[in-house]
Amino acid sequence: MDILKLINSQKQKFPLEQPFYVNKEIFELDLETFFYNQWVFVGHASRITNKGDYFLFSIGNESIIIIRENNEKINCFFNVCRHRGSHICLEDEGRVRKLICPYHAWGYDLGGNLINAKMMEKNFNPKNWNLKKCYSQVFEGLVFINLSEKPSEFKNFIKPIKPFIELHGLGRAKIADRKIYPTKGNWKLALDNFHECYHCQPSHPEYCHVHSRDYIQSYGAGSNTGPKSKEFNKKLKIWNKKVKKLGYLTGEFSEDKFSEFFRSAERTPFSNGKLSETKSGKPASTLMGEFNEFDGGYTTIGPSPFNSIIMSNDFATTFTFIPKGPNDTDIEIMWLVNENAIEGVDYNMEELTWMWHKTTLEDKRIIEDNQKGVLSKKYEPGPLSEMEMGLEKLKIWYLKHLEKSIKKTTNTI
Amino acid sequence: MDILKLINSQKQKFPLEQPFYVNKEIFELDLETFFYNQWVFVGHASRITNKGDYFLFSIGNESIIIIRENNEKINCFFNVCRHRGSHICLEDEGRVRKLICPYHAWGYDLGGNLINAKMMEKNFNPKNWNLKKCYSQVFEGLVFINLSEKPSEFKNFIKPIKPFIELHGLGRAKIADRKIYPTKGNWKLALDNFHECYHCQPSHPEYCHVHSRDYIQSYGAGSNTGPKSKEFNKKLKIWNKKVKKLGYLTGEFSEDKFSEFFRSAERTPFSNGKLSETKSGKPASTLMGEFNEFDGGYTTIGPSPFNSIIMSNDFATTFTFIPKGPNDTDIEIMWLVNENAIEGVDYNMEELTWMWHKTTLEDKRIIEDNQKGVLSKKYEPGPLSEMEMGLEKLKIWYLKHLEKSIKKTTNTI
Amino acid sequence: MDILKLINSQKQKFPLEQPFYVNKEIFELDLETFFYNQWVFVGHASRITNKGDYFLFSIGNESIIIIRENNEKINCFFNVCRHRGSHICLEDEGRVRKLICPYHAWGYDLGGNLINAKMMEKNFNPKNWNLKKCYSQVFEGLVFINLSEKPSEFKNFIKPIKPFIELHGLGRAKIADRKIYPTKGNWKLALDNFHECYHCQPSHPEYCHVHSRDYIQSYGAGSNTGPKSKEFNKKLKIWNKKVKKLGYLTGEFSEDKFSEFFRSAERTPFSNGKLSETKSGKPASTLMGEFNEFDGGYTTIGPSPFNSIIMSNDFATTFTFIPKGPNDTDIEIMWLVNENAIEGVDYNMEELTWMWHKTTLEDKRIIEDNQKGVLSKKYEPGPLSEMEMGLEKLKIWYLKHLEKSIKKTTNTI
Repeated sequence: MDILKLINSQKQKFPLEQPFYVNKEIFELDLETFFYNQWVFVGHASRITNKGDYFLFSIGNESIIIIRENNEKINCFFNVCRHRGSHICLEDEGRVRKLICPYHAWGYDLGGNLINAKMMEKNFNPKNWNLKKCYSQVFEGLVFINLSEKPSEFKNFIKPIKPFIELHGLGRAKIADRKIYPTKGNWKLALDNFHECYHCQPSHPEYCHVHSRDYIQSYGAGSNTGPKSKEFNKKLKIWNKKVKKLGYLTGEFSEDKFSEFFRSAERTPFSNGKLSETKSGKPASTLMGEFNEFDGGYTTIGPSPFNSIIMSNDFATTFTFIPKGPNDTDIEIMWLVNENAIEGVDYNMEELTWMWHKTTLEDKRIIEDNQKGVLSKKYEPGPLSEMEMGLEKLKIWYLKHLEKSIKKTTNTI
Repeated sequence: MDILKLINSQKQKFPLEQPFYVNKEIFELDLETFFYNQWVFVGHASRITNKGDYFLFSIGNESIIIIRENNEKINCFFNVCRHRGSHICLEDEGRVRKLICPYHAWGYDLGGNLINAKMMEKNFNPKNWNLKKCYSQVFEGLVFINLSEKPSEFKNFIKPIKPFIELHGLGRAKIADRKIYPTKGNWKLALDNFHECYHCQPSHPEYCHVHSRDYIQSYGAGSNTGPKSKEFNKKLKIWNKKVKKLGYLTGEFSEDKFSEFFRSAERTPFSNGKLSETKSGKPASTLMGEFNEFDGGYTTIGPSPFNSIIMSNDFATTFTFIPKGPNDTDIEIMWLVNENAIEGVDYNMEELTWMWHKTTLEDKRIIEDNQKGVLSKKYEPGPLSEMEMGLEKLKIWYLKHLEKSIKKTTNTI
Repeated sequence: MDILKLINSQKQKFPLEQPFYVNKEIFELDLETFFYNQWVFVGHASRITNKGDYFLFSIGNESIIIIRENNEKINCFFNVCRHRGSHICLEDEGRVRKLICPYHAWGYDLGGNLINAKMMEKNFNPKNWNLKKCYSQVFEGLVFINLSEKPSEFKNFIKPIKPFIELHGLGRAKIADRKIYPTKGNWKLALDNFHECYHCQPSHPEYCHVHSRDYIQSYGAGSNTGPKSKEFNKKLKIWNKKVKKLGYLTGEFSEDKFSEFFRSAERTPFSNGKLSETKSGKPASTLMGEFNEFDGGYTTIGPSPFNSIIMSNDFATTFTFIPKGPNDTDIEIMWLVNENAIEGVDYNMEELTWMWHKTTLEDKRIIEDNQKGVLSKKYEPGPLSEMEMGLEKLKIWYLKHLEKSIKKTTNTI
C-alpha cells in the first residue's frame, strides 16, 4: 500500500477513507508517529500519594509502572525486568517497598536502580542493569508520559494550556471515580466523535440538557469548530467581562500553525444560570483552584489528541483515548474533585459522573456502529457538515504529521 | 500461491485439496467470485409485511437492510450512512418510518432518498447522497439479493426453477420458524455435505426414518448424484403418472452445460404412503399453493450453491449457507407454512421442524469434524463413492468458475 | 527476517532475543525442527489396558489416535479418515471395536486397515487407503511418538536413560492423576523455566520445603546447571555408596557432544531423611520397580526438551510440554503409582500431587508474566546467573540445531 499516495488523495471537508480506520499497517504507523511521540496524560498523582505507591498504564505491548519515589518525585519505568524480561508489577495498582521481580527476585529501589541480584558472575556490574525509564512529567498533579526516545520539551508543550490548568488547581485534587470504556472502533473514529458536536443533538440527551443549543453549535467541539452563533457570542462577551472583574482567567487558545502538537483550551459560560456540568446545573462538589465563588463558566483543554480535560469550577473530567488495535480503543475517564471534598458530604458520585458516564456510553455505541459501517466495501466518505470543522482540523493535522513522519523515515533509510 | 496451477492439479472424483478449505486468500476470492455474484435467497417477504418493516442480512463486512417501501415494493440498501458511514439500522429486525442514522440524524425515506441533513454547506446536493442500493428481486415472496455491480438477469436465473416454486405458492406463505446454525467449517465443506447423501445412512437417523433407502441412494442429493435405483425409478414413473392426472407439475431440471448458475429442481414421491416430510409421514400443516389434495410428493430446489428449498405439500424448508470466514459458515433455516395456517391449530412446530432441525445439528457436527481433519498436514483427498457425484459436480463447477474468474481479472489488469 | 543471522547474533550467557519468543515464523520452524522430529512421551499404556481403548494427543493441527490393538501392540494413527478427511475419534478417550468414521462409516480395524467402504467404484482397492500411521514406541509403559517421516532409531534414543527408567518399573505403573495447565507463553519460555532453579527460592515455597538449599543450587535444574556445592557433593558421595550397597542404580548422564538429542538423567539423595517428594517427606504410595525399601533418593530424567520424568521410589511425575502457538503452551502432568496401589488405602491423591501441582501453577503464572514483558519493545536479554547454566545449555543446543536444520533445508532446495 502506498500510504503517501493515499494521504494525498484524501478530500477536503470529507472524513478519511477506509484504510485509515481499518488497516493494520497504518495502525502501527499511527502508534509510532502519534501515541509514542506525544505527551500523554495517563493519571493523577493522587492515585499514588505514599512512597512506593504505583499504578500501571498499558498501551499495545507496553506496560508502564508509574511509581512514587518520595514526596517530590514520581518515576515511570518500563515494566520489564532487566534480567529475563518478566513483568515486575503484576497488579493494576499497589504499594511496594522495592520493585522486586517475582521471577528471580532481582530487586530495584524506587529510583529504578538494581540493588539485588544473587549468584551473578564476578564481572557483573549492577549499574548497567537499572530499570529502563520512560520520560514523564507531573504538572499540577497530572502525570504525563512520553514514550519517545527524544521527547519534545515539556515546557514548550504545556505553555499555552498551563494557565487554564492552574486556574482549576488540579494539583490539589483527588480522583473521585475512574472508569474505562473499551470501545470496538479505531482510535481516529473515537477522536472524530470527540471533535464534533454535530451528533450531540441526536445522540446525547444528557449533554443537550446541560448545554444550550447556541453553545453546542458554535463551541460544542471547541472554538471555531461550528458556525458562529451571535447569541452565544453575546453571552460570551458579557460573561468574559464579568469574570475578568472577578479576577479569573478568560479566553482561548488554539494552534495557529502546524507543529507536532495538537492543543486547545478555552473558557466559556454555561447558559440559564447553570453553575456546573450537572443535571440540575447546581454544583456537584466544593470549589477548586483559584475559585472563591462559582463564575458560571467552564474550561475545556485538549493537551494532545489523546486527552481532553473538561472542568467546571467544582470538578474536572479527564479523558484518555488509548489505541488498543485497529478496531479497539479504550476510553479512560477520571473525575477529579477538591482533595478535601468528602464523598456523601461535599459531593455525590451519581451527580458528578452522570453526564459524562451516560454520554460516553452513548459515544461507545456510536463509535462501534460507525466502525461496522466503515468496514463495508461500500463505505465512502461523505461531505462534512458545518459543525464538523473540528474533525476536519484534526484530519488535516493528522495527515500532515503522518506524511512528514513517513518522509523523514524514508530519508533516514 | 499459484491458485490457477492448484485448480488444474485437482483430481477427478476426489474432493478438493486442503488449501481450498483453509486458505484465507482463496476464501476472499470465493466470496468475490461466488457469493457476491449470485442471486442469493436471504429471506421471505412475510417477515416484513408492513410499510417500514425491515430485517438485516449480514455477509462478511456487509450488512444489508431489506425493507418494505410499500405494498408492492421491497428495497435493499447497504447499511452504511452516506455521511460518515455509520450503520443505520442496529437491530436484526424492526419497523421504522424513515431510515434515520443514529449518529447525526441524516434521514432517508423508505426509497433510500436522503431527505434530512442539517447544517450542510450551501452547495450540498442531497440527491447525490442517497443510500447505496443492492440489487434485489422478490419472487413468490422469496427475497433474492445480488451483491454484484452487474448482476445477471433475474429472469434468466429464475426461469427453470420458476414452475417448481409457483406450484407451492410460497408467495402466500409465512415464516413459522427461523434458526441459525453457526458452523465451524469452510462453506465448501458445508456444501459438500449438502450435495451427497452417502453420509445419510450413518449420520441421519431422522432423515432415514422419513426417506426410503432407494430414494436416498439415487436422489438423496438430487437426480443423478448416486447410482440409479430400479425400484425407485419404478415408483417415480407410477407417481408421475398419478400426479399428472391430478394436474400438478412433475419432472426435474439440472444444468446441462456450464454457466454462472448452479441450479437444480425436481419432484419425487415419498415412499410407504407418506404425505409429508415428518416423523409420522402425516401432514404437519395445511395445504399450500396449487395443491387441493396431498399428492404424496416432494419438491427440491437448488437456486444457487448457497440455497436449497425443500417442499412438502404443506410446508417448505429453506436453507441459506452464509460464508463467515475460512472456517466459519452460518446455516440459516426457515420453515414456511400457508399464510393462513395457525400454530397449534393447523400446525405443530415440533412436528414441522423435527427432521431438518435434528439433521442440521448432525450436519453441523459432521462439518466441524471434517474441518478439523482437513487441517491436518496428513489430509489428502480420498476417492469419492458412487453416491458422491453431486459433490463432484459441484466441485467441477466451482473450479471452472473460479478459473474463469481469475483469468478474467488477470486479463483486465 | 534473516533467521540465520539472528541465530548468530545471540550472546553467550544471555537468554534469547525477542523474536525467538514471539515470532510466528520461528514458531512454525520450531515445530518442524524440534517437536515433529523428537521422540516425545505422550502418555502411559495404563490409560489403554483393553483392546480398542484409545486416547487422543493433539499438537498444532494434528490429532493422533493412540489405540491398543491387542495385549502386545499399541498403534498410533493420524485422526484423519482417508476418504474425506474427517476426524474419526471425537472424544478425548474411549473404547471402540473398530475405528469407524462418523461421517460416511468408512471402517478400519485396530491395525488401521480399511475394512469397510460402501458404494465404491469397481477399481477401488481398499489396501491403498489404510489409516496413516505415526511412528511410536512403548517402553516400560511410556508411549513415545515421533511425527517425523524418518525418525531416529528409538534404540539409540532410549539407551542412556533406559536403566534409570527400568529401575522405577514404570511398566508396572498406572496413572493416578492427570492435569493440563494451559499457559500463555512460548514453549521456550516454559522450558527456560524448567531448566533453571534460580527462581525456585523466590517462587516455589513447596519445592523449597521439600528440597534442600544445597541440592537446589547445584542440581535443582540438573547436574552442572548451577555452582558446585561441597555440602551436597559430600551427601551425594555418601548416598551413592549406601545405594550401591543396596544394589540400586546410581549416577548420571548428560549429553557430552552435540546431537539431535537433548537428554539427561541422574540419581540424587533427598536431605533430612526424606523418603519421597512429599510435604512430610514420608512416602505417598507403595514402592515401585526394583525397590524393596526406600533408598532416600530421587531420579530425574529428561528424554527430550519436551519431557521430564521425576521419580521418587513410590511415585513418578511426568511432564509434557506441548507448543500450541507462539504464545501458548500446554503443560501436561501425569502422576504414576504402582499398578497395584489402591487410592485411599495405599496412596492419598492430595499428598501425591501436592508439590508439582502447586509448583506448576506457580510456573504457569511466572511464564505468563515473563511472556508479557518479553513482548515489550524495551525487552533486552539480561545476563544469566550462575544458576541458569541449564537454560544456557538448552539455548546453545536449540540454536545449533535450528541453524543446522535451516542450512539443510536451504541446501535441499
